[in-house]
Amino acid sequence: MLYTADSLHELIEEFAQLPGIGRKSAQRLALYILKLPKEEVAAMAAALMNVKEKMRYCTTCWNFTETDPCPVCSNPKRDANIICVVEEPNDVMAIEKTNDYRGHYHVLGGALAPLEGIGPEDLKVKELLVRITPEVHEVILALNPNIEGEATTIYLTRLLKPLGVDVTRLARGIPIGGDLEFADEATLSRAIEGRVAV
Amino acid sequence: MLYTADSLHELIEEFAQLPGIGRKSAQRLALYILKLPKEEVAAMAAALMNVKEKMRYCTTCWNFTETDPCPVCSNPKRDANIICVVEEPNDVMAIEKTNDYRGHYHVLGGALAPLEGIGPEDLKVKELLVRITPEVHEVILALNPNIEGEATTIYLTRLLKPLGVDVTRLARGIPIGGDLEFADEATLSRAIEGRVAV
Repeated sequence: MLYTADSLHELIEEFAQLPGIGRKSAQRLALYILKLPKEEVAAMAAALMNVKEKMRYCTTCWNFTETDPCPVCSNPKRDANIICVVEEPNDVMAIEKTNDYRGHYHVLGGALAPLEGIGPEDLKVKELLVRITPEVHEVILALNPNIEGEATTIYLTRLLKPLGVDVTRLARGIPIGGDLEFADEATLSRAIEGRVAV
Repeated sequence: MLYTADSLHELIEEFAQLPGIGRKSAQRLALYILKLPKEEVAAMAAALMNVKEKMRYCTTCWNFTETDPCPVCSNPKRDANIICVVEEPNDVMAIEKTNDYRGHYHVLGGALAPLEGIGPEDLKVKELLVRITPEVHEVILALNPNIEGEATTIYLTRLLKPLGVDVTRLARGIPIGGDLEFADEATLSRAIEGRVAV
């Protein structure tokens, strides 16, 4: 297209390849960048490079970190004998935001998906098993409530139970602030099944 | 928050300041960046810097460009005697995509918005008037169909008509592919008002 200068077009392409950003949003973002002061754009470019240079995996829990072990694994105030297993680093962020959980994490790096060719060897499963020392008394499986997450939960439960550790999973039910009317049937039937005394 | 390494947190902040990107999207984007190969992140950082270094305003039409005059203003195949007035560079992109318009543009840099303190002196209005030579026979006002765009259309029409140039505006009516049932009343009433013989 005649009107789009190469450098602008290139930036639009870069934005458009990000997840959840379509062509129009990419264009809007690129034009926004054009109007930002140069220092702010430089700061953004530096933040991009910086994150790639500084971040690595924690070789204990496999979350992203700048230091190995990561701040959670090396925090003496956190209970190393409870391990919460999640799929991705953003799940760690989500749980940390609750400010409720004081144990450790283990990031699998995904969930079992045989159809996509993702098996146990593609996830940090072996790395989880070596962490189950006799002191560890609970493993919380906090996988996503979908088919892959369910399959992974079942798979890990079978591996973990023989090691003599308590295996738990997140409660499923009506979301807080949700409306019964809008809850899907699967959620509602789980909520009835898991009803508790008041 | 303990778990977020500084460099990751910084990148999330950078993304979160972009228009239309909330906290969760910013987090998702930052984690996506972490998983990209380093060369791709470097390319993105370079594209950001590049666009700021190379892009300037065309001092004729005030669109963004790498060369001054811009490729549209300097293209001998385009009709310099028709000027399409738009609010922002993305409006130029939108019209260029139709491949229908072969005239020139004029980017105002916004629309009149007295409540936000945006008056004619904040827009490229004077710069538009000096372009209206006797050869220019039509000015198309392609401003947004909202209150600010309307006010700007009325204001510019008053300035331009005495110069002896034809002043036109975009047709308003039912969008192509739209459904009468879902058209708002204002659009529908405009469409009836502007009905044409078949």
